[in-house]
This record gives sequence, C-alpha cells and structure tokens, in this order.
Amino acid sequence: MTPRPLASLTTPRLLLDEPRMTRNLARMRAQLARLAVRARPHGKTCKSPEIARRMLDPEAPAITVSTLAEAERFFAAGIRDVLYAVGIAPNKLDHVLDLRARGCDLTVVVDGVQAATAVAARRAGIPALLEIDSDGHRAGLRPDADALLATAAALTAGGVVRGVMTHAGASYDCRSADAIAALAEQERAAVVAAAARLRAAGHPCPIVSVGSTPTALYARDLTGVTEVRAGVYVFMDLVMAGLGVCAVDDVALSVMVSVIGHQPDKGWLLTDGGWMALSRDRGTSGQAVDHGYGLVCSLAGAPIEDLFVVGANQEHGIVARRGGGPLKPELFPVGTLLRVLPNHACATAAQHAGYDVVAGGPDASAHWPRFGGW
Amino acid sequence: MTPRPLASLTTPRLLLDEPRMTRNLARMRAQLARLAVRARPHGKTCKSPEIARRMLDPEAPAITVSTLAEAERFFAAGIRDVLYAVGIAPNKLDHVLDLRARGCDLTVVVDGVQAATAVAARRAGIPALLEIDSDGHRAGLRPDADALLATAAALTAGGVVRGVMTHAGASYDCRSADAIAALAEQERAAVVAAAARLRAAGHPCPIVSVGSTPTALYARDLTGVTEVRAGVYVFMDLVMAGLGVCAVDDVALSVMVSVIGHQPDKGWLLTDGGWMALSRDRGTSGQAVDHGYGLVCSLAGAPIEDLFVVGANQEHGIVARRGGGPLKPELFPVGTLLRVLPNHACATAAQHAGYDVVAGGPDASAHWPRFGGW
Repeated sequence: MTPRPLASLTTPRLLLDEPRMTRNLARMRAQLARLAVRARPHGKTCKSPEIARRMLDPEAPAITVSTLAEAERFFAAGIRDVLYAVGIAPNKLDHVLDLRARGCDLTVVVDGVQAATAVAARRAGIPALLEIDSDGHRAGLRPDADALLATAAALTAGGVVRGVMTHAGASYDCRSADAIAALAEQERAAVVAAAARLRAAGHPCPIVSVGSTPTALYARDLTGVTEVRAGVYVFMDLVMAGLGVCAVDDVALSVMVSVIGHQPDKGWLLTDGGWMALSRDRGTSGQAVDHGYGLVCSLAGAPIEDLFVVGANQEHGIVARRGGGPLKPELFPVGTLLRVLPNHACATAAQHAGYDVVAGGPDASAHWPRFGGW
Repeated sequence: MTPRPLASLTTPRLLLDEPRMTRNLARMRAQLARLAVRARPHGKTCKSPEIARRMLDPEAPAITVSTLAEAERFFAAGIRDVLYAVGIAPNKLDHVLDLRARGCDLTVVVDGVQAATAVAARRAGIPALLEIDSDGHRAGLRPDADALLATAAALTAGGVVRGVMTHAGASYDCRSADAIAALAEQERAAVVAAAARLRAAGHPCPIVSVGSTPTALYARDLTGVTEVRAGVYVFMDLVMAGLGVCAVDDVALSVMVSVIGHQPDKGWLLTDGGWMALSRDRGTSGQAVDHGYGLVCSLAGAPIEDLFVVGANQEHGIVARRGGGPLKPELFPVGTLLRVLPNHACATAAQHAGYDVVAGGPDASAHWPRFGGW
C-alpha cells in the first residue's frame, strides 16, 4: 500500500505503532527463551493474521483462541495447532469436529465431568485440556479436587486427555512485580501439580499450559510448564502500564480522533471518539491512576500534559485536564487530530474493523483488517 | 427464512423479541401523536434497516444517525432525510458532500464558530443545525450565548442554518418520572429559546429538534418543537428499567448464552457470554439496582430468581445469585441455554453482527443483519 497521510484519513480510527509492537514482541520472545517454554500466543487480542504471524514461534507455530471464529480465521491463514481456551459449550462441538475434519489440530477445554462427558459422547477422539483453577478467579478444577481424575476418566470414554491449562486472571489485580512473580509461581505450581496427579493416574499430559501477560513477563521459573499463552503484550495498554508491566510509551495501540467542539467554561474538548471507538472498558478505574476512557496524546503519540478522556457517549469523547482546570480552545481548534491510548487493548481493538499501521511519522504505511464474531 | 430452533443455534447470540419491540414502537408512536411532533428516530441503537423501517414515520420518513456509515446504509435503504447528530469533524465533509451529491438530504451539526466556518468554507450550501446545550451534559451552545448568533452568521457564509437541536443526556441520571418531565421541559425551553433568538436575527429555523428516550416518553408538552429523536426505546434495556421508563419485561434485546461450567463452592455458573457478547457497559452500576453485566433469564425470557452476571471476562460470564448464596449446578447443567438482558441496548447490540428474531417460542423466525464502523 502507498503510505497515506494520517491527516487525510477520517476519524475515529485505530492506529497500531509498529516499532512499539516489535519491541513488545522481542521482549516476550526473550523472556520465553530464558524460561525455555514454547509460545502459544493468544489471538483474541489482535484477531488479525498479519499480527498473529509475528507473535508465533516460527519453529512450532501454535495459537490460542477465544472463539471458533478465531480458530477458523487463523487456520485459514495456515496455523494448524489451535487451542480454543474457553470451556466448550456442547452446541459448538459440531463446529469443532468440522474444523478437525478439515485438518485443524484443534484442542478444546473442559473443567468438569459434564463437559468432559459431552466431548467424549462424540466418540471422535477430540483432544481436550483440563482447566485448572490456580487463583479462584474464574473457571477450572482445583488441582487437588476429586473431580480432576473423574473428569479425565469421563473424557477418555471417547476423547483424549491432552493435558492441563490455567489462567491466572488475578494477575490483573496485583500491585507489584513481586506479587505478580508470586502469582506466576502459584499458577505454575497448580498446573504442574494437576499434571502430576493425572500422570500418576495414567494420563500422559503432554501439554502443561499457563498464561497471562503479567505472569508471563514476571515468572522467574516455569519448570514443568510446556507452553505460555499471552496476548495483550503485543499491544500493551494502560491497565498493563498501571500494573507496572510496561511503560506508557510501550502502548502500541491508539485511537485517532478529531476535536469537534469545546466547552471552555468546563475546560472540555469534545471529540468524535466516544465509547464506540474506545470501548466501555474502564479497566484503570480500580488502579492508582484512573485514566477514564483513555490518555490523550498528540498525533505523533506523545502524551499531552494531563489530558484524558473524562467521559464518553456513543460517538462523543469528553477530554479534560486531570483534576480539572482550564483548557484553552485555541490550542486545540476544531479538526485537531489527537490519539487516545486505551485502557484495555482487547476491548478497544474489538470496536474496529482494522489497524492503520504507523511508525511515529505522519503516514500510515498499511491497513491490516481484523475480524470479530463467534 | 424457515424458523430455526434456538436450541440448534450456537452461542453467544443476540436475540430480539419482536412482540416486545412492537409494543415499544406503539408506545412511542402514541406519545409522539399526542405531542403532535414528528419522529426522527435514532438509528444508532439498531443499525439495521429492517428495524429502522419500523421506527420511521411513514408519512415523513426521517432518521437520525451517529456515524456517516449509518447515513450510507440508511440512505441505501431508501431513507433520504438524514440528520448526522454528532458535531461535524472537518475530515468528514468530503463524505458529507458525496452523500449529498448522490441525493441524500443530509444535515450536519455544529456547535460553534470554528465548526460553522469549516462547513461554510465548502461553499456548498450544506444545511446544519446548531447544537444547543440544554443541561450542561456534553456539547452545544447555551441558548443565551453570544456565540449562538456568531455561529449562525459564520454558517451562512456558505452553508445553511436549518435550525437547532439538543440532547438532554442528563435524563439518564434522573430519579423519577417528575424529574424526567422537568428535564424534558428544560430541553424544550432551551431549544425553543435558541430558535427564537435565531429567528429574530433573520434565520428561519424550520427544524427544532429534541430527543432522548426518557424525555420523549415523559414530556408533557412540546410546543415549539418540530421533531423528536430517540433510539433506545425500540429495544429498551436495564438502564431504562432502572429509570422507571419501562418494565424489565419490555426489554426486547437479550444475549443467548450457554452454561459451560460451575464453581459450586462460590455459587457460580460459568457461561460463554463474556463482555465481548454483553459489552463492557456497566450503566446500572450507579442505579438503585446494579445488574452487573446483565440480568439472567430462562430461554423463554423470564427472569430467573435473582441471577445476574456478576463478572465478565472476554468470553466468560460469571453468573451468581444476588447477594451470594448457593446455586445448584444440577439445575443448570453444562449446555443449558440462558438469556441475558443488557444494561445498555446500544452497547450490547454493537457487539453483534445481527439479530435473531424471536417471539417467546422456541424458534428464531428471522435473522436481521446489523452493521458497524464509521
């Protein structure tokens, strides 16, 4: 594609800073090499083959997905080894079987006897990981639960126990690097203990899978783990910056918006970037610094003093100075282009149909489509 | 389309209860007839020609949109009279001119001299409404502002003053029907006063436009107003129910989800309806009853005791009893289909590519696509 000046594009629009993304990718690659584990990056953040390709381990390309739509699209892009990491609903098994019949090595997840029985009932050798609860955060079996072995036994009636997986979602609530490292060890210990119990009962468990961006980056040792799933690291976001997992200038994703009006008495700028463009995610609301609906930057990507998106309607963003205070309209005339860094990359990216790729200069060098749906 | 059993469809999936929608449409139609004002329904909630068609005044079809993508799609569906009700960004004027050149009678909105000057600079007679601030909520000129007449004057240099518009977004914070009625009167008075000033200065102002679902339904008199914009009424949602604007069983939109697991110790059901399906909107969080990410109903659409979506990850919903307490897994085995009523219809619908139309029975009678983007 011929480079297109940002100033010639309409707003709102999702921008992807490629040098920042490349830096984030290199950081995770170095960390996984140090820990000697395989990458099975999560495709739910980017939902883009162009970006997923850059996240893969070229020696052993494998991906994690959160929907069967992702499985379809990444398989169509040539990625065969796919883990669908959400507990399988019975009404999705026809689609799972269809993908497998077409050559996709799709693994599903079960977290109890009922789901395992539904998978086994297909008598089709569908491989599944048992989901382990490592932090009380969401789904999964405790590693010492009676139901762990019962679930594996139910699965073997017609499916295959391929191993175990967990997700330490509680890492998003940690307050320090040490706390994240401790949770990473808790995540590792839970899943390795579950695998040991299953192996003792005769299930080989070749896959022992963990992952979240914070625990992946702060884990000190992953002995016994075979693969790491993480997704948001490719873009990073304000929630990750608030956790200390990255710096604000590592955030590769932003939404370009236009100033459309002013309320000088209130110290407000109005923009055309509302929650439809930014998402309703308020992930920084419980952090030390609440960024509202996002942090405001210049078109070149540098944060502007203390400007943030204090409120959002469907197609209106309200920008104000942190703590209030005057905001001179003449500094930001109607038509000024700004960039807003998102709270949560997965949620904001999901509001858009594609990425305009930038590198700090005045042009977009490419447009990469993204997909949605189930 | 042949009716399709809901039980044969995959989840998550957006359902639209047609009898409820029809009731909501009839209620608004009767109210606008009583008030003797035209309807210019807002298409931003449904983003579907099939639904918008049912909202229109058949005598004088006119629509409101929040994006030029909506203008394109509704114009393609035969609706010529379109108001783009977000302050115009200069980078959208080429698209506005293109739509107008193709026969779309598109009106834009300006809320100050800078935007009016940008519109006038095209020397193309683009018609615009002046946005009036009736409640300090967001954008617009105060009716008594010096800038009101200056904005109209700037516009006439190359555009056309077609009238005034306001949106009393503060109606979402009202606590009683009387409070909403009072705000509706404030909305009316502000925009009628602005029109009077403009007319005295020689601008005819044929359009005097107000609208929000709460103020439209509770207004007692709209003398001087020519048209009402409202959109969410077609579906209603839990925020509207929390305001007392509708009953819970008026909510026509829901997300069908599957139970995928249980955490009996915590009293949780896990579903495949996370925030990607429900949206991140937490609009009831400030209301008397906080519905989390939504209220849980049976597949037939009846609320189930006190079940609600207490937490949401990207593709996981966590369902619990209000106030905690045990939830017997055997009542909701893996694969059980449930429906979740949304906090905010605009936000939840935007997460989906279409509507499966239901009528209380076990089948979907039709699928109506919806669009997104800008």
